[in-house]
Amino acid sequence: MIKKVDDFARLDVFREFRSGKPEAIFAQNKTPEQLVKIVEAFLGCKDSVLITRLNDEQIKALKSNFKDVHVNEIGKVAVVGKRAKELNEGGIECVGKIAIFTAGTSDIPVAEEAYTTARFLGLEVLKFYDVGIACLYRLLEPLKKVKEEDVDVIIAIAGMEGALPSVLAGLVDVPIIAVPTSIGYGVNLDGLTPLFSMLLSCPSGVAVVNIDNGFGASVFAYLIVKRRKA
Amino acid sequence: MIKKVDDFARLDVFREFRSGKPEAIFAQNKTPEQLVKIVEAFLGCKDSVLITRLNDEQIKALKSNFKDVHVNEIGKVAVVGKRAKELNEGGIECVGKIAIFTAGTSDIPVAEEAYTTARFLGLEVLKFYDVGIACLYRLLEPLKKVKEEDVDVIIAIAGMEGALPSVLAGLVDVPIIAVPTSIGYGVNLDGLTPLFSMLLSCPSGVAVVNIDNGFGASVFAYLIVKRRKA
Amino acid sequence: MIKKVDDFARLDVFREFRSGKPEAIFAQNKTPEQLVKIVEAFLGCKDSVLITRLNDEQIKALKSNFKDVHVNEIGKVAVVGKRAKELNEGGIECVGKIAIFTAGTSDIPVAEEAYTTARFLGLEVLKFYDVGIACLYRLLEPLKKVKEEDVDVIIAIAGMEGALPSVLAGLVDVPIIAVPTSIGYGVNLDGLTPLFSMLLSCPSGVAVVNIDNGFGASVFAYLIVKRRKA
Amino acid sequence: MIKKVDDFARLDVFREFRSGKPEAIFAQNKTPEQLVKIVEAFLGCKDSVLITRLNDEQIKALKSNFKDVHVNEIGKVAVVGKRAKELNEGGIECVGKIAIFTAGTSDIPVAEEAYTTARFLGLEVLKFYDVGIACLYRLLEPLKKVKEEDVDVIIAIAGMEGALPSVLAGLVDVPIIAVPTSIGYGVNLDGLTPLFSMLLSCPSGVAVVNIDNGFGASVFAYLIVKRRKA
Amino acid sequence: MIKKVDDFARLDVFREFRSGKPEAIFAQNKTPEQLVKIVEAFLGCKDSVLITRLNDEQIKALKSNFKDVHVNEIGKVAVVGKRAKELNEGGIECVGKIAIFTAGTSDIPVAEEAYTTARFLGLEVLKFYDVGIACLYRLLEPLKKVKEEDVDVIIAIAGMEGALPSVLAGLVDVPIIAVPTSIGYGVNLDGLTPLFSMLLSCPSGVAVVNIDNGFGASVFAYLIVKRRKA
Amino acid sequence: MIKKVDDFARLDVFREFRSGKPEAIFAQNKTPEQLVKIVEAFLGCKDSVLITRLNDEQIKALKSNFKDVHVNEIGKVAVVGKRAKELNEGGIECVGKIAIFTAGTSDIPVAEEAYTTARFLGLEVLKFYDVGIACLYRLLEPLKKVKEEDVDVIIAIAGMEGALPSVLAGLVDVPIIAVPTSIGYGVNLDGLTPLFSMLLSCPSGVAVVNIDNGFGASVFAYLIVKRRKA
Amino acid sequence: MIKKVDDFARLDVFREFRSGKPEAIFAQNKTPEQLVKIVEAFLGCKDSVLITRLNDEQIKALKSNFKDVHVNEIGKVAVVGKRAKELNEGGIECVGKIAIFTAGTSDIPVAEEAYTTARFLGLEVLKFYDVGIACLYRLLEPLKKVKEEDVDVIIAIAGMEGALPSVLAGLVDVPIIAVPTSIGYGVNLDGLTPLFSMLLSCPSGVAVVNIDNGFGASVFAYLIVKRRKA
Amino acid sequence: MIKKVDDFARLDVFREFRSGKPEAIFAQNKTPEQLVKIVEAFLGCKDSVLITRLNDEQIKALKSNFKDVHVNEIGKVAVVGKRAKELNEGGIECVGKIAIFTAGTSDIPVAEEAYTTARFLGLEVLKFYDVGIACLYRLLEPLKKVKEEDVDVIIAIAGMEGALPSVLAGLVDVPIIAVPTSIGYGVNLDGLTPLFSMLLSCPSGVAVVNIDNGFGASVFAYLIVKRRKA
Repeated sequence: MIKKVDDFARLDVFREFRSGKPEAIFAQNKTPEQLVKIVEAFLGCKDSVLITRLNDEQIKALKSNFKDVHVNEIGKVAVVGKRAKELNEGGIECVGKIAIFTAGTSDIPVAEEAYTTARFLGLEVLKFYDVGIACLYRLLEPLKKVKEEDVDVIIAIAGMEGALPSVLAGLVDVPIIAVPTSIGYGVNLDGLTPLFSMLLSCPSGVAVVNIDNGFGASVFAYLIVKRRKA
Repeated sequence: MIKKVDDFARLDVFREFRSGKPEAIFAQNKTPEQLVKIVEAFLGCKDSVLITRLNDEQIKALKSNFKDVHVNEIGKVAVVGKRAKELNEGGIECVGKIAIFTAGTSDIPVAEEAYTTARFLGLEVLKFYDVGIACLYRLLEPLKKVKEEDVDVIIAIAGMEGALPSVLAGLVDVPIIAVPTSIGYGVNLDGLTPLFSMLLSCPSGVAVVNIDNGFGASVFAYLIVKRRKA
Repeated sequence: MIKKVDDFARLDVFREFRSGKPEAIFAQNKTPEQLVKIVEAFLGCKDSVLITRLNDEQIKALKSNFKDVHVNEIGKVAVVGKRAKELNEGGIECVGKIAIFTAGTSDIPVAEEAYTTARFLGLEVLKFYDVGIACLYRLLEPLKKVKEEDVDVIIAIAGMEGALPSVLAGLVDVPIIAVPTSIGYGVNLDGLTPLFSMLLSCPSGVAVVNIDNGFGASVFAYLIVKRRKA
Repeated sequence: MIKKVDDFARLDVFREFRSGKPEAIFAQNKTPEQLVKIVEAFLGCKDSVLITRLNDEQIKALKSNFKDVHVNEIGKVAVVGKRAKELNEGGIECVGKIAIFTAGTSDIPVAEEAYTTARFLGLEVLKFYDVGIACLYRLLEPLKKVKEEDVDVIIAIAGMEGALPSVLAGLVDVPIIAVPTSIGYGVNLDGLTPLFSMLLSCPSGVAVVNIDNGFGASVFAYLIVKRRKA
Repeated sequence: MIKKVDDFARLDVFREFRSGKPEAIFAQNKTPEQLVKIVEAFLGCKDSVLITRLNDEQIKALKSNFKDVHVNEIGKVAVVGKRAKELNEGGIECVGKIAIFTAGTSDIPVAEEAYTTARFLGLEVLKFYDVGIACLYRLLEPLKKVKEEDVDVIIAIAGMEGALPSVLAGLVDVPIIAVPTSIGYGVNLDGLTPLFSMLLSCPSGVAVVNIDNGFGASVFAYLIVKRRKA
Repeated sequence: MIKKVDDFARLDVFREFRSGKPEAIFAQNKTPEQLVKIVEAFLGCKDSVLITRLNDEQIKALKSNFKDVHVNEIGKVAVVGKRAKELNEGGIECVGKIAIFTAGTSDIPVAEEAYTTARFLGLEVLKFYDVGIACLYRLLEPLKKVKEEDVDVIIAIAGMEGALPSVLAGLVDVPIIAVPTSIGYGVNLDGLTPLFSMLLSCPSGVAVVNIDNGFGASVFAYLIVKRRKA
Repeated sequence: MIKKVDDFARLDVFREFRSGKPEAIFAQNKTPEQLVKIVEAFLGCKDSVLITRLNDEQIKALKSNFKDVHVNEIGKVAVVGKRAKELNEGGIECVGKIAIFTAGTSDIPVAEEAYTTARFLGLEVLKFYDVGIACLYRLLEPLKKVKEEDVDVIIAIAGMEGALPSVLAGLVDVPIIAVPTSIGYGVNLDGLTPLFSMLLSCPSGVAVVNIDNGFGASVFAYLIVKRRKA
Repeated sequence: MIKKVDDFARLDVFREFRSGKPEAIFAQNKTPEQLVKIVEAFLGCKDSVLITRLNDEQIKALKSNFKDVHVNEIGKVAVVGKRAKELNEGGIECVGKIAIFTAGTSDIPVAEEAYTTARFLGLEVLKFYDVGIACLYRLLEPLKKVKEEDVDVIIAIAGMEGALPSVLAGLVDVPIIAVPTSIGYGVNLDGLTPLFSMLLSCPSGVAVVNIDNGFGASVFAYLIVKRRKA
């Protein structure tokens, strides 16, 4: 069944059934009115929906139009519906455990997009922010934790030279999903430099998603975890 | 223990122990003599080793210097030692199952690098070559097989517009590791275009490794499978 | 006859006669006053004119200076003169039929520029928006329609990985004009990635126009249709 | 029916039926043996096949393995089967008429790829080579011919600054398929500069295919012509 | 003598003596206060100065601080001092004659920067704006004028595909200074595409200056003219 | 000891001890509140801290929250703590002497970031601004000074063609740290062109830091000086 | 009159008449046989012709097919016909004087292409090779000569950082035609870096031709000189 | 005194006197005969000379034309004259101590160019090859040595992701000269990716030279050391 929303969006509400992946709405370039209509259409068929790349005006519109809304202001991401309620009240049973590392504080918005996506999908998340390679000693405690808690996947987020995933991959045997960020200056080139340096990681065990794509990293992590539990 | 090989390579023979990933030798830019020495050093500490990016002269040198050698001529990859014997004699017990798709026939050398890497790591592999999106009907049979055999990971290899991983990700809920290839002409840009288009995949569930990096794709697949079995 | 407009524009009012293509005004970088003068000059020789890439201030100036104005707010495009009246009143006889597909909702402004251009040129248009490859099932109904209605040309508009034209070209035998869009993030590279991936389309039958150039796509479609009817 | 060829290529022999486009074989990166096998498989189901991007060794293999072979040495393209016989003997009835322009003599190999593809598809072709914009007077005679013969489509092939399609589009009302070529030096950038300048053509009525893609240009031209005759 | 201006600029007031070229001030990134001080310092040693890349605030500051100011609002350029008076009153004797062509109306700001620079240097200027190659007929009248008036140099300014200088160079034997402009969209790439296509001009006789550099084009033209008169 | 600041930053307060380099805070993308908290945390363990890439709001927040603040408005850099007091009162003993050259006045903000960083580190600084190669005579006096004062390191800052470091390296035997700047237009490409031309310097003795990275240049200079005094 | 040569080249033998520029043949990508035929066709209408970008085989073919041939082996350029005889015998009257500078010895092949082109056109040439900015003192003698001999135009050829034209432009008031060269390594980027740095030249009076285009530089110089003598 | 060598090279034999840097000859693109002549000219004024980027033929020519030749086959670099004798016999007194690190074995040719350059300049060198970040443990022993021996400068050479200099800079307080290498595949982009990632190094204390420029790194190191000893 393909359901039309005012002719500007075709929702395939059974997509999750088909491919096991959550449906999410990419809010960028949508008016608040369009967004609200699309969310309403979703909630006619499903109990919860995730929305990414929100601006302040869109967040306001979600809050005033829906009852159960869970917003991550830093990550510019929201959940609407049953799952929002669960997230607000803390009642989610977890299907697996991941760790999110960032190299610097500037990478945190991307990390928070990944964080709420992961929570929406039922993943438990250990956060290790601002642990980039400028000081390798900062990595010791987080890595100890990663091994103790038997984490399934690491999401490693970095801008600048993007060396964090490589360094981690040389030290642990967990699959590492690398997320380059566009924040920086000079030859950061809007994230192309960390993207390329992550793809060139000497230690194997690193795969990469699009620049700033915290959402995609968590969905990929979820697919790995889900199979483990299958 | 760090073992020196004639001052031109430092082998960390305990690396596998430390991070659970196989050690491999990247043969490009090494003379046949250097390569043989490095392989010998490895076999002093481990029973098997994988070597990638071989040229014909190097393959010849391996065959004449070692007893147990398994060579994949198309993938330019070899295994030396105990595992080579097992691969030649067919006696490997499998730790998991993956599928390797290629869009065209030109992508096969990269696929074969991935194939022998996966076999070295104990993975069972379903091969579906030349099933690109020019004819979507060619995908039906392979996808049916992927579901029946409950494959853990798909490696999708494509040059040109690189759309194969996106199309697969819209149809199945298995993690897809995308490998762009450098083979093509015009705006292929030595693989940058399929790399970028794979990173932009609309359906989530796709992560990408370096251009032509069949080896890296299989190691990443192995890490996913290994955890599942953990 | 070359007619001067205050020395800042030379109109070749017989251009349409010469090459059979409509004259259009590219509004970007023109002041509202300049624009109004140029439109007036046109209407001294022709009964209608199309204006693209309008901003809000320019649209306002057109509305207050001319009687018959037809505006497409989303596509930032307007028609002034006799044809505007016909479009407003619905009285246009059609010279042919095309279909406009978009992969996502963000591509709609470009699609609407194409739409009004096509209408200005007397083409009937079937719209299929938000039918990208993330869910191939969404394509079934539109494709059935395309075949039933015997559409002459398809305009396929996409950002992200730009795979929609390739997928369509593998399924239908109609010429496909692909329009990459600049909307996206990360390695979209302001539309270069979908542009390149469209040029690399494995299935043949795809030709490409400039990024975001909905206008050019419809003029090209019109030339194809016009010859058919010749 | 999907027919397997030694596991390295899957032919969808009904593709032409499905989408009305000719099947062609891209010979680059295939061994002569692989190529011969693939051609044989095709000829088991169809009476003719087109092969592009051939090297000398592959051409030799085709000639010694098949009876009816038509080779264009300059265009590095061949036809095998019934259509080859017709081309060799001159007995093809034409479905439409196109013109192929090149800016310089270096562009001729791409033009010849387009030429034989067009002939394979039953198109009559007017050739105008080395008529670039360095001397506009050289364009007069060809353009007169284009109008007299009522050509359906122009294929305009150019390297260097790539201005030929733009200049033509300012003078005639026929759809122009532009093909940039990689031949040149300095800022030609392997064809990217003429590609971009063709996409930026001021006069509308130009659409572009991949660099050096003479084959794709003729298939697109064929789709236009075919509809006209429909 | 090197004169210091508050430590933020070192004027070499004898530069013109040394190399025969006019001193100009590039206003971008300077505060109105800094600009006024630098102009004052100049006028302590010379009778006139040219200032380019002005914003509105800087223009206002010049007008309120100096008596003789000549401003070109479109070209964002001004002259202060004796020469400004002459320009305002029309009393300049000419040292030579150039023509400035633009392809479109969007290129006019760059043309006006070139225009006032040329006037400052004592050149007579013929302006032909909006005569791009979309309609070659628009070039006829200007070219006739160029020959009749025996123009020394042509400055040809174009964005988009940048073909104007090439076309002119195929028709006249005057040195052509090409100026690419950054105005456009899609693959204009901020002027890189017209820059490259101008450098690749098939007809010889074209040399290129930086994107949007109307000032540099006129100084180069002046050096040519000056030698002629030497 | 790793000290946490509200979970968004991990300070390794012993980093200076470990690697002899000063800790600095990169203010970009931090809220004024975050910044104040991070500075407070630093001042709990160290007596002074340097902050770069400040905006006006952040500078205001520093001034109203801390007693000893030294601000360089042009360089967008500040010092807080004991060292700020010393800088304000002029009581710093110097560990060495460097010279900072800029090619133009637009490069001064980057030079001032380098200047205050150098002062923070106890370096004496000779400033030579606006001495680019347009007039080589402007270099004579500064070079004489550089030799007389036996300067340890030169920092050479330039945008445009970035030739200043090359020219200096041909004339003096002091290590030159080149800093490309992003200020310019056309093919400056946000500083990539001067970056590349500095890396290609014919005379040896030039090493380069990131575009606009005045801070990094001074830290590198400090490391050179520090060893000299060791 | 447009004369056809075996259908692969259309010579416009009256082009020189029309635009005052010499006809030259770009030999690259032509077989020796094609080249000989094209030269023959030229010599049917004109007394001399210039041929650039020759390889050894082509040079041999020219020598064995024509009587009067003048070859520059380093510049890969030849003259055939009456002018060749004059060049071989030294009997050319000069129409003007130019100077050719190269920064290094690697730039000499490009300089020699410019040299023979200039000689073909009747220009006297002063050569100053290997006088790059690594040692500014090397420039003193050449510059003295340039002034003494009252040179009309300087052609400045450089790879690496491409600073030579900028430095010259700061010292003399002669128009400088800059030619970037592709010879170098690392970030030379096949000549793009010197191209861009030449376009960014701080001192005005520099215009640029395509990478390695010695021919184009001399034709442009000739147009300047020709007007002076007009 | 500027001494001419057959008109193809101008040696400034007093350059070392002027700027304290060694003269070196870049052999690439020179014939063996040219090279021998240039070396002879040098040895007429100086006792030793360094030659880089040699090919086998050039090395042979040096050996058969000069008595004292010291060749580094891997680094493609040679010394001729008095210093060659000292290097062959081991009798050089050292002016300082540096360390050269490489990430992999492929980086060794660049390291050896740096090594012989450093030896020529009288530096003692500690070599640590193949100690990239894939296994951080390999860095422990070298770093201990660096501290014990009180090394003045580190040269860190890496391809791939280029993270070695960043990691070192986080651990030691010695100036680090980073050299990116062009060896790799996929998104290495001929060394641009490690170049950019080195420029973006989070820890300060890193400056960069051109891709593969081992020579330049050692000259820069020498300038630092020389001042220390001054």
